[in-house]
Amino acid sequence: MTRILTVAGAQMGPIQRADDRASVIERMLALLHRAHRRGAGLVVFPELALTTFFPRWVIDDQAEVDAWFEAGMPNPAVQPLFDAARTLGIGFYLGYAELTHEGGRTRRFNTAILVDETGTILGKYRKVHLPGHAEPDPARLHQHLEKRYFEVGDLGFPVWRTLGGVMGMCICNDRRWPETYRVMGLQGVEMILLGYNTPAQNAQGGEEVHLRMMHHHLCIQAGAYQNSSFVVAVAKAGLEDGHDLIGGSCIAGPTGAIVALATTQKDELIVADCDLDQCAFGKASVFDFAAHRRPEHYGRITAQTGATPPP
Amino acid sequence: MTRILTVAGAQMGPIQRADDRASVIERMLALLHRAHRRGAGLVVFPELALTTFFPRWVIDDQAEVDAWFEAGMPNPAVQPLFDAARTLGIGFYLGYAELTHEGGRTRRFNTAILVDETGTILGKYRKVHLPGHAEPDPARLHQHLEKRYFEVGDLGFPVWRTLGGVMGMCICNDRRWPETYRVMGLQGVEMILLGYNTPAQNAQGGEEVHLRMMHHHLCIQAGAYQNSSFVVAVAKAGLEDGHDLIGGSCIAGPTGAIVALATTQKDELIVADCDLDQCAFGKASVFDFAAHRRPEHYGRITAQTGATPPP
Repeated sequence: MTRILTVAGAQMGPIQRADDRASVIERMLALLHRAHRRGAGLVVFPELALTTFFPRWVIDDQAEVDAWFEAGMPNPAVQPLFDAARTLGIGFYLGYAELTHEGGRTRRFNTAILVDETGTILGKYRKVHLPGHAEPDPARLHQHLEKRYFEVGDLGFPVWRTLGGVMGMCICNDRRWPETYRVMGLQGVEMILLGYNTPAQNAQGGEEVHLRMMHHHLCIQAGAYQNSSFVVAVAKAGLEDGHDLIGGSCIAGPTGAIVALATTQKDELIVADCDLDQCAFGKASVFDFAAHRRPEHYGRITAQTGATPPP
Repeated sequence: MTRILTVAGAQMGPIQRADDRASVIERMLALLHRAHRRGAGLVVFPELALTTFFPRWVIDDQAEVDAWFEAGMPNPAVQPLFDAARTLGIGFYLGYAELTHEGGRTRRFNTAILVDETGTILGKYRKVHLPGHAEPDPARLHQHLEKRYFEVGDLGFPVWRTLGGVMGMCICNDRRWPETYRVMGLQGVEMILLGYNTPAQNAQGGEEVHLRMMHHHLCIQAGAYQNSSFVVAVAKAGLEDGHDLIGGSCIAGPTGAIVALATTQKDELIVADCDLDQCAFGKASVFDFAAHRRPEHYGRITAQTGATPPP
């Protein structure tokens, strides 16, 4: 038996500050059509795919901040993407900055949605692991103010049964945290979709630049293997407003092997036939959670946040 | 500032069923002396380092099973190892099958001890993630009866402040589980010691043989990076009683990079100068747990054992 989902990762080159949404959507439509020609049933776009990575700047004017956000989804700017997906019969994952009014207040999240092949929004994920800092920090090589502009996601890590399998979502820095994959693995996830914008340089120095790509792939591959799930990881890449972002978009299979890999820092499509039935072996053998996990010894993982070294 | 601990991984080639403890200890002493000449302050030996990997056999006679176990530690057979460690001023990690009488009953564990440079047993770890099965299973390519011969470890994943740093231990299959590293990471671990016996072939088939080494290194490197800790992983390797065990002993640094790697399946020493202060950067930046972890979204990790896919 096979359950093949042909999935495309639509890596995007840089989006400069001066680029408007229309020009971005035009590039995304080109990737979507290319994915259709390659037989894809699902396309994964990057995190914050509609704009430059604005958290690298200190912006004091709230109206200027909010111009990077989407107050509705879909909205007129992105509607052509939804229309094309429906016409072509392709689902997609889209990352964007979400502005919403909930509980009598304005809230802002780093969000991704899963849209099915009819153009219907099936699910929403709000980024849990916001990296960086909330206050400007001149000691850093560049600013990374996600904790300033976004609230921590409040939706957990849900999964959805759709497109023939069990799908999950996360965003960028979430991929460095094994908890992310495990919470979805415990819900039987078979494919995890994630977009990212990863500076080529650690803002706090102290990390050799060549290790950034290794760390990215290491976390993706380990998360895939240890939960016997596909992971589709898609970058916004290249020199964006003077800041270099790593590429390295990839699709990892449930053995942890990378089965498709981007080779540029530009708009580039990677495609793989993913047989979701390949997830079954790991889930029934080495990673048969019911047989082998020992939560009675994992208490610290949920009981404490920070590390508490011995005296 | 630097806190350099020179650590040696003492990979061991196969120990055949016919080999007695004395011949094994002789090989371990040779490795210990070699480690001393290389300047090591700590030597890591494999899991079940004193015997062949007996869980590959169905043994019905309990006395025959118990012959693979150590009823005391140290005992006359291993005393020369303790004596040499004290003489040379080297600490060591030793894996062995532990037989003990506790709470009025006989108990058996897959155990490791940490011995300091005075020959004193500082700490004990009992393997939590026992792989394999409890009942003979003719459908498997070989038997892996750890769940038959051992109880699940009851000591959790403690750490010890010794040898200039914060040290933790685990054993073999524990290394495939991110929970293992994280529970120690949450205690500020700086070096994780682990021995293993890993069949070159997955007993349940379904996994390509060449992936076994990749999976081993993938888990080690991810655990090291995601907890900003050294990991010293040491094999019993080679063709043991007709069953092939992978080598690939390695020392991974807190960036996840492998800094020393065995290249044989024989008795072989790998050595690295590990500056424990290198752990500080990751723990204060990307993996600043207090700043970035979100246990409120990790509930499933401790609340459930097996996976519960959506309907």
